[in-house]
Amino acid sequence: MKKVYVGMAAVIEKDEKFLILKRSKDRDFEPEAWETVTGRLEADESPVTGVLREVEEETSLKVEVILPLDTGFFYRGGKEFPMVFISYYCKYVEGNVNLTWEHSEYKWITLQEALDLPDLKHFHVMLQNLRNLKKSLPENFKYSFSPTIHL
Amino acid sequence: MKKVYVGMAAVIEKDEKFLILKRSKDRDFEPEAWETVTGRLEADESPVTGVLREVEEETSLKVEVILPLDTGFFYRGGKEFPMVFISYYCKYVEGNVNLTWEHSEYKWITLQEALDLPDLKHFHVMLQNLRNLKKSLPENFKYSFSPTIHL
Repeated sequence: MKKVYVGMAAVIEKDEKFLILKRSKDRDFEPEAWETVTGRLEADESPVTGVLREVEEETSLKVEVILPLDTGFFYRGGKEFPMVFISYYCKYVEGNVNLTWEHSEYKWITLQEALDLPDLKHFHVMLQNLRNLKKSLPENFKYSFSPTIHL
Repeated sequence: MKKVYVGMAAVIEKDEKFLILKRSKDRDFEPEAWETVTGRLEADESPVTGVLREVEEETSLKVEVILPLDTGFFYRGGKEFPMVFISYYCKYVEGNVNLTWEHSEYKWITLQEALDLPDLKHFHVMLQNLRNLKKSLPENFKYSFSPTIHL
């Protein structure tokens, strides 16, 4: 059994469009690439709590988490940073986008535009899963998530 | 940013029934309680790879992972064991159930029976999400999952 870092990504929908952010030119990793909101688990929090926190920190938006879209594993910047990631489909609730130093631009684009954007290649699986889900799920569908449990 | 353990749970369906296992009387934690297949991430593997491995180790079954049902955080046996968990809906592919020392019995039960079983209270949220999903998703629905990525 080993410990890993946990990263989250959020695909945020508002009026059939999806939010993407452009990484600042000062970022050491993939500067000026478009991405969705991403973040890492801090302290003792659930990934859903973490992704809501990261969305608010990076964009000022309030969103609700609908369900997970993908899970996986990668090395972030080398083998000393093993990371499990979980990506979530989120829906806009309220607020206006306010970026931090981490991003220089934002856009709301269609799911097809997101799937066609080469920068988003790491997000392709979650976007495909979302496209397939949206063919079947009712508009108001939403998971519940377990509260933090102390066993 | 902190490191955590990652645990997985699998709700395995075969012919509209779901597999539950009874923990051995020798287990130090919750002996003789019914549960689904659970396990922990070992080494550098994705949670999907890990859950397939755990299912095979604990039951000898081959299954396919359909999609995640819940994510959360708990302390496993105290604050020194912070754990993120991801539970998955899986479908039986092949094999016969063969248990290890960890479990003494198994049963295939309906989703309603699982929801009514007090032992499965920690699994209630994932089972409810599964019940809601099954109302809408086509029979052959299945996610793709990202391969392990080396950035």
